[in-house]
Amino acid sequence: MKPIKHNQGEATRHSILVAAERIFADVGFATARLEDVALAVGIRRPSIIYYFANKQDLYDAVEHDIFESMHAMAPGPAGEHPIDNLLALLDGWLDFLVGRPTAARIIMRLVADTTPRHGDPTRYSNLVLSDIDAIVTDGIASGDFRPMPPMHVVNAVGSSSLFYVCNSRQLGDGRSYAAADPKSLASFRSLLHKLARAAVDPNGGNSK
Amino acid sequence: MKPIKHNQGEATRHSILVAAERIFADVGFATARLEDVALAVGIRRPSIIYYFANKQDLYDAVEHDIFESMHAMAPGPAGEHPIDNLLALLDGWLDFLVGRPTAARIIMRLVADTTPRHGDPTRYSNLVLSDIDAIVTDGIASGDFRPMPPMHVVNAVGSSSLFYVCNSRQLGDGRSYAAADPKSLASFRSLLHKLARAAVDPNGGNSK
Repeated sequence: MKPIKHNQGEATRHSILVAAERIFADVGFATARLEDVALAVGIRRPSIIYYFANKQDLYDAVEHDIFESMHAMAPGPAGEHPIDNLLALLDGWLDFLVGRPTAARIIMRLVADTTPRHGDPTRYSNLVLSDIDAIVTDGIASGDFRPMPPMHVVNAVGSSSLFYVCNSRQLGDGRSYAAADPKSLASFRSLLHKLARAAVDPNGGNSK
Repeated sequence: MKPIKHNQGEATRHSILVAAERIFADVGFATARLEDVALAVGIRRPSIIYYFANKQDLYDAVEHDIFESMHAMAPGPAGEHPIDNLLALLDGWLDFLVGRPTAARIIMRLVADTTPRHGDPTRYSNLVLSDIDAIVTDGIASGDFRPMPPMHVVNAVGSSSLFYVCNSRQLGDGRSYAAADPKSLASFRSLLHKLARAAVDPNGGNSK
């Protein structure tokens, strides 16, 4: 969310987005009610309609902000080696999702949905998918990465951070952890790096 | 789903479960309606109530069946090496999810939900989590795997197959694939094996 609050209106709009993100994450689009968002913000329902015409518009604004913020974590074009760029991107995603677990849950719900939103499931996520597309494509072109569909990296490695965040309290007694705990996070990040290197390693052979 | 149909009643119960799994996968628990399940089966709503007292009971039966069926893919205790057991388990999960994408979507929705079902989010999934717990714990004990939380393997590698299945049509133009296509599946399976080996490799060092 943009921290800049130009005025009261901008502050209210920001509060609505924050409350809506939590509610969409908790119960999903279909179950979420504008009344509950209004209640969480401490305003009346008509006040939301002043900023967002309807629930779909509000949801779109939330999803748009999630992927823009995630895209902002992408490394600049400076990196010397494709693997450094890939690790920096995955680190950025991990830090973003750990710091904003509501975003992680909304992305999980988006992946579970079969009905493409507005006929295009990547209307907002394309920003983020393009970031990893570009890095993997560069790595393949330079011979640093083995040839592979970039989306394999998304599915196999990008997914991990989403699960790490969403599953922290979902795995039952004795298996829970705090995703933001520095020790747990460092251990998971180290694993994520191992997996990313293994995924793209051009000398990895064809292990069965 | 159990293929055994003792009689008409058992066949109807089976049809209800199949239809319900698709509807819960498509729209989620909150939005799913018993009326729609009845319509899909070609029976009236009261006929469902004869088999399942309410929507929660029906959902529970679907989730129970998913995790029992997934658990049935676990390799027997025969495997010589922990890594073979781990790869066999991951192969079993991948094949199960590719063959039953509705199950993949229901599991994704379960991970996204913050409210533990009946206070225990692993009421049914524990069967499957225990399978991987046991294999990773064995591998660590024998020194074949590096010490790590078994749930790291679930989050980092187990998640991959869920994304591979659910994302097949969700990634936008030029990135779609058919999860069950033999070539795509073989390529993804090879990657999954690389990741599993990298995740547990005791000689993997501390790559940053």
